[in-house]
Amino acid sequence: MVAVPAGYNDLLERPLYGHLATARPDGSVQVSPMWFDWDGELLRFAHTTKRQKYRNVQSNPRVAMSISDPDNPYRYLEVRGDVERIEPDPAASFFRRIAKRYSGDEPPPDAPPRGEAPSDAPDWVVIVVRPTGFSRH
Amino acid sequence: MVAVPAGYNDLLERPLYGHLATARPDGSVQVSPMWFDWDGELLRFAHTTKRQKYRNVQSNPRVAMSISDPDNPYRYLEVRGDVERIEPDPAASFFRRIAKRYSGDEPPPDAPPRGEAPSDAPDWVVIVVRPTGFSRH
Repeated sequence: MVAVPAGYNDLLERPLYGHLATARPDGSVQVSPMWFDWDGELLRFAHTTKRQKYRNVQSNPRVAMSISDPDNPYRYLEVRGDVERIEPDPAASFFRRIAKRYSGDEPPPDAPPRGEAPSDAPDWVVIVVRPTGFSRH
Repeated sequence: MVAVPAGYNDLLERPLYGHLATARPDGSVQVSPMWFDWDGELLRFAHTTKRQKYRNVQSNPRVAMSISDPDNPYRYLEVRGDVERIEPDPAASFFRRIAKRYSGDEPPPDAPPRGEAPSDAPDWVVIVVRPTGFSRH
């Protein structure tokens, strides 16, 4: 297990947004701000089966996330990792837990548009990522 | 030329940090906060020939950048683009210009460590990116 660089744990423990990058099946990259959960070993992201990142990580499980310190823009942490598993979350219970962490009641920033028909309701999942390396400044 | 989504120009025109994602030669992704310049048509990044992104974009010119609104974390813009060219900047004049844009006098957050020997001094370049698509929320 790789260790978080000394003095950088706060960037994983605070409810900051992580900019999660994934690779599309065609090899191009995608990046967007995401809520995340960190338990000291694994990162977890609330996601749905309808979103681009879900398709991306199924074809390429290697991801990376960049977190900036809002109090000091020169300070940041990059986490590289592998998607270890994707867990179904049919009752959206993980989504509700992470929404509480962020004190929010809105969907995450890259969620599908509101007002979609019930038949298009998303299937919530949890993307579980095991870190393989860190970079920081 | 693709158009910036209506109402999102400010995220490109303000001196915000963009989280720039690139793909490594092995297909894994890399992402870190970067200064950027936007002239209404092209994005420009100050970089050096010694840094990972320089190697990455030479093998895969497709990049993506995520910019969050610090005043509203639900609002963000993703820019996808292609590296159109890499221009040498031997006198670091673009670097100095962009440093002024950010009112900073420190190197960008993922610059090499300070105090490196003169023989290891970086060769500054400008990475020029033409947008090919936008996503926003």
